[in-house]
Amino acid sequence: MATPGSLSTHAGIDLGGTKIQAAIVADDGSVLGSARLATPTTGGPESVVAALAKSLREAALAAGVNVPKRIGVGTPGSVDPRRTTVTGARNLSGFEGTVPLAALLGAALGAQIVLGNDVGVALDAEAALGAGVDLASFIGVWWGTGIGGGVVLDGQRWLGRGAAGEIGHVVVEMGGRRCPCGREGCVEAYAGRRALEERARKLHASGHKTRLFKIAEKKGRERLTSGVWAKALEEGDELADELIEHAVRAIAAGAASAVNLLDVEGVVIGGGLGTRLGEPYVAKIAAAMQQHLFRPERPPLVCLSKLGDFAGAVGAALL
Amino acid sequence: MATPGSLSTHAGIDLGGTKIQAAIVADDGSVLGSARLATPTTGGPESVVAALAKSLREAALAAGVNVPKRIGVGTPGSVDPRRTTVTGARNLSGFEGTVPLAALLGAALGAQIVLGNDVGVALDAEAALGAGVDLASFIGVWWGTGIGGGVVLDGQRWLGRGAAGEIGHVVVEMGGRRCPCGREGCVEAYAGRRALEERARKLHASGHKTRLFKIAEKKGRERLTSGVWAKALEEGDELADELIEHAVRAIAAGAASAVNLLDVEGVVIGGGLGTRLGEPYVAKIAAAMQQHLFRPERPPLVCLSKLGDFAGAVGAALL
Repeated sequence: MATPGSLSTHAGIDLGGTKIQAAIVADDGSVLGSARLATPTTGGPESVVAALAKSLREAALAAGVNVPKRIGVGTPGSVDPRRTTVTGARNLSGFEGTVPLAALLGAALGAQIVLGNDVGVALDAEAALGAGVDLASFIGVWWGTGIGGGVVLDGQRWLGRGAAGEIGHVVVEMGGRRCPCGREGCVEAYAGRRALEERARKLHASGHKTRLFKIAEKKGRERLTSGVWAKALEEGDELADELIEHAVRAIAAGAASAVNLLDVEGVVIGGGLGTRLGEPYVAKIAAAMQQHLFRPERPPLVCLSKLGDFAGAVGAALL
Repeated sequence: MATPGSLSTHAGIDLGGTKIQAAIVADDGSVLGSARLATPTTGGPESVVAALAKSLREAALAAGVNVPKRIGVGTPGSVDPRRTTVTGARNLSGFEGTVPLAALLGAALGAQIVLGNDVGVALDAEAALGAGVDLASFIGVWWGTGIGGGVVLDGQRWLGRGAAGEIGHVVVEMGGRRCPCGREGCVEAYAGRRALEERARKLHASGHKTRLFKIAEKKGRERLTSGVWAKALEEGDELADELIEHAVRAIAAGAASAVNLLDVEGVVIGGGLGTRLGEPYVAKIAAAMQQHLFRPERPPLVCLSKLGDFAGAVGAALL
């Protein structure tokens, strides 16, 4: 029985470039209460911290508990070894340098804050409570603004020298398209939401027809969010379809390369765009992987993240 | 002190598509005696087995020991779980199907034969006695007729579901050049010795100038062996240079992808062509990797196999 503030509840916040997802989570990973807010795009760390605090208070209210004394936060950028500061989270307003996020949010909520890498904690949650229940080893492909990822081997995330898992920066085209990371031919250059938006804008400006920007306007979005892409695909928008098909091929080539290298049991697709586009696109990725697999007769299981939109918040709560 | 037939010596044979390398090895991995023969290209398993037996007898003679009672053999193709048969070693005459290699060679030598995968045993030897002395985790790239490889994590080869390590079939060009494996855009399609030879033949036939085939003729080789490529590069042959530079770029893109995924400490280059071209080309691979590395400020150590031409035979001896 969860009593207010009891030890059986955990609190986590997934801080993304587009949205903030907070959750109060039970020991078994079930979500007792949650709240979602848009990530402030201006106002710097102060406004981001205010939104984080607000989301957590709303989630606690929804779960009927007090704000817990210890809260995990999954964040983009690099987290220091003491897990209190974040550096270079360029998706976030005013986070280009080092931000003492644990101290700032701790002061706002009167709680101890522990930071973790956003995709990393989501994958830890998948390994412990989601896809990992069926798969001892898998690759996670977090298809969102960028393409994050991770490698889980024998139930544990493999970190290498600390930066393993960059499936988004596996090269699928030598001398290929410029990636937001500055390199050429990475999976993310063809499949990340930011790269897709940039490409769509360029093609639209040069006369290609698309309803993407009309749909965004209607939805009151400045960016081509996952919902905008989903709507455009639903409406049969040719440009959206072409760009997403190319994204699928790039993700499939990168994931198949990882499988040829590691022969893992599964590939788990998550992230904002992955979760939003869902099963039909997971099936497309699986189909496009076949031609590249060294052992096509026994492909890995390709599946959607089991924890979906909550993977990050649940993972943060487990920190 | 190694006395004839004492327990302190081990015997291994590396059976390759081009050459057979036998070695008598001490506990510490040092080679006490060795012999090398060309792999028979005709005559089926019978002639291959005769050459294997001959090479081992010569190595034992050179080491001054009797033929050991237990001999390890590294072979291309798939080895069965009991390690007695090999299937689909298409580089070898008459090995397309399943060959009971342990039984055939055991009868010829009066010894117990244990089979292992050629690149796998070479990497085990590197992990135990070679590059692994300095590197807890590394990727092996065996640059030869094909591109073999392996992944060593925390000192152990990671096998996944049994087929991990196919760095040669990491995709570096979506919809790219046809690979000898039948797929498109694999590293091996640009860098494997067989693929390079096929490409050179095609370009030569369509009028491109090259001394590659003249050099092979002079050396009495039917194929463009590693030695032929090395000689052509030495002579400044433009076509050879161009093809090998492309091979370097493909290997670099594949290896960088693997490093971005696993953040291992090192990349170890081995195999016939890798060993023959040596340090200058290892340096070229390292340089070409930089542009693709997610953390270029702390690249992995890229180095040549420490055991070189003997990696396979030493690894087989450790079986």
